[in-house]
Amino acid sequence: MKRIALVIAAMLLGVGAFAQQALFGGAGVESPVINEDGTVTFRYRAPKAVKVTVSGDFLQPQKVEYKMGDQTITAETTVPAEMKEGADGVWEYTTPFKVAPELYNYTFSVDGTQVIDPNNVFVNRDVASLTSVLLVPEAGARSDLYAIHRVPHGSVTKVWYPSKTAGFDRRLTVYTPAGYEDNPKAKYPVLYVLHGIGGDEDAWVTQGRATQILDNLIARGQAKPMIVVFTNGNISQEAAPLENSMDYTRPTMSLPQTMEGTFETSFPEVVSFIDSHYRTIAKKQSRAICGLSMGGFHTLYITLNNPDMFNYSGMFSAAIGTGSEQTATHKEIYADVDGKLATYFSKKPALLWIGIGSSDFLIQANNEFRAKLDAAGYPYKYMETDGGHIWRNWRIYLSEFVPLLFK
Amino acid sequence: MKRIALVIAAMLLGVGAFAQQALFGGAGVESPVINEDGTVTFRYRAPKAVKVTVSGDFLQPQKVEYKMGDQTITAETTVPAEMKEGADGVWEYTTPFKVAPELYNYTFSVDGTQVIDPNNVFVNRDVASLTSVLLVPEAGARSDLYAIHRVPHGSVTKVWYPSKTAGFDRRLTVYTPAGYEDNPKAKYPVLYVLHGIGGDEDAWVTQGRATQILDNLIARGQAKPMIVVFTNGNISQEAAPLENSMDYTRPTMSLPQTMEGTFETSFPEVVSFIDSHYRTIAKKQSRAICGLSMGGFHTLYITLNNPDMFNYSGMFSAAIGTGSEQTATHKEIYADVDGKLATYFSKKPALLWIGIGSSDFLIQANNEFRAKLDAAGYPYKYMETDGGHIWRNWRIYLSEFVPLLFK
Repeated sequence: MKRIALVIAAMLLGVGAFAQQALFGGAGVESPVINEDGTVTFRYRAPKAVKVTVSGDFLQPQKVEYKMGDQTITAETTVPAEMKEGADGVWEYTTPFKVAPELYNYTFSVDGTQVIDPNNVFVNRDVASLTSVLLVPEAGARSDLYAIHRVPHGSVTKVWYPSKTAGFDRRLTVYTPAGYEDNPKAKYPVLYVLHGIGGDEDAWVTQGRATQILDNLIARGQAKPMIVVFTNGNISQEAAPLENSMDYTRPTMSLPQTMEGTFETSFPEVVSFIDSHYRTIAKKQSRAICGLSMGGFHTLYITLNNPDMFNYSGMFSAAIGTGSEQTATHKEIYADVDGKLATYFSKKPALLWIGIGSSDFLIQANNEFRAKLDAAGYPYKYMETDGGHIWRNWRIYLSEFVPLLFK
Repeated sequence: MKRIALVIAAMLLGVGAFAQQALFGGAGVESPVINEDGTVTFRYRAPKAVKVTVSGDFLQPQKVEYKMGDQTITAETTVPAEMKEGADGVWEYTTPFKVAPELYNYTFSVDGTQVIDPNNVFVNRDVASLTSVLLVPEAGARSDLYAIHRVPHGSVTKVWYPSKTAGFDRRLTVYTPAGYEDNPKAKYPVLYVLHGIGGDEDAWVTQGRATQILDNLIARGQAKPMIVVFTNGNISQEAAPLENSMDYTRPTMSLPQTMEGTFETSFPEVVSFIDSHYRTIAKKQSRAICGLSMGGFHTLYITLNNPDMFNYSGMFSAAIGTGSEQTATHKEIYADVDGKLATYFSKKPALLWIGIGSSDFLIQANNEFRAKLDAAGYPYKYMETDGGHIWRNWRIYLSEFVPLLFK
């Protein structure tokens, strides 16, 4: 057995000097650790460092002010927790509270440099930030929806569609529910799910755990089997970074054609591609759309400009009222909102759903929009949760919205 | 415009305190930078650190000895390069040579703690190691195959198949070539691609850039359109970590049922799932298999035990001769190799392909195997490259093997 262990060890060396250290116990640091009492311990080895902190959405949020030029933005965010150095150069922090079941992101800051946890291989990218992932699932808790269970699983495909608007092929992520392949005559309703600014067609599947939420809700009988399409809302981009022919450097926020109407204008070509390549029920009654932040903004305007396309629309922390409507290239997309709302509601859509966090900086714009709906007597469902403009809320909204569809 | 920029900035704050720092220029460190003269500069900010190094396969490999118990393994690996600290606490290293076009992995070590580059969001996981990715593509160079180009793209699906052997559903990655959806009557040959120990169904798609290699070779007319299936060779595991119902902690190497015959025994159930769910040409002439390291070992024994299944087999740095054949649960899989070789070659397979690095620690076992083939007069193709047991070689072998298939 010794020789085998030795050779297997050597095989692992294959990846170079990297694997060696991680696999053969270089630092021997365990992090994160969910303790028996429900607290969580984070550790980071930095023998020469002077200050090490841990940040993450497992911490309690506090109100803070950001200065930007001559303006001040008040936002709710978490404040980094200071870690204490042990005798062996390992810094440690244990939460003084039980960490509730959820999916969290966290990072360390070592003398001002933000790093992910080198002892945790679960990492998410959101825009240009990498964060480490901590999943605390618990039977009965909502976060159990974010975990993989031994239930029938849908398939998740990265597929490219030809975009006439963009002039090149672009990538989509498509979820087909369990049973899709084995029931070749069955047709399915479709939900389109849109990401926020700087995100891409991967965001909802990674940070959003959307395919787990769908698998689990469908398996519990709480949602209808449906096809779910995750678009890339950055029309100037083919696909997520490193899947993009032009972008082998860092992701950037300064993407052209963002929130100026082109993506909304192009949306019917996505629907047409899906209807021609998947077994969809290709009619309004069986079509839904939702999105977070910029995706909520896209959802609103795609819905209003195509009043016969979607029967269900979900605006999650929608980035409305930012002023980008006025500077848009395709001003027609944002024009005559009152008229478009009247047309849309005259066609009696099944559901307009609005969700936002009570401390989201966009709540005022969303409140103004709801006041407009109220004044006109237009029906909608509304959910307000704790917290701000964060992924935790978007996972919650998706898991609330999906069970309402296609009933 | 100011208000818009401000609100968009605030939307980005949504991800919490994380995004802020990365997006608003916290550290302002650029790394990695491919310089005009072809050298590459790496930077890491660590004002209090005493020693910072950068490791990676862009460095020239050297022979080193690893001690394990009472034995010594000689392996070729790279030795970390020391970085120099600038006045601002930013450590820097510029290669003294032009970095050849390739896809590289690298990490930093800060006073002994291995971290990825916080200023580079391209990260790969291999087993329990995270590394940063540096892609240097160049027209005409092989690494140009690893880049996305504006050519027709295949679809990449994560799909679950029922494994009777395992007793639960398991995940596969399936590549269908461009045109598959638009030609509903067309049937395709199938290549099965197997990962190494500790890898999973994601490895070839991330580290291996296999779907880019396929897209590009097919677009150039250098490979036939084919379906490619990436299995998970860890039969006790459902799927990659974080896609696995049991494993929300760190990935481990100590997986039960590794290299003891169960996966090889179960392989026909994979082939049968693919043949029943995809438009395959379901016969030996149109089936190929290859794998790296443990996957090369799997390839050999799956081929020999199913002599009518594969017409093309590729062993990439195959982990043969490790002794695990003798301690296997399913000894019959590894028994009577000479007899099985005779049967296999009597059926005149189109190709047995063997590739290995000249400094791979498995080269002796592979040389012994080739000597056996030579002695019996069995035909095979052989490729020996520089370097050891590394991903660079496996990408090369895949891009050499694929053009030979299904001609």
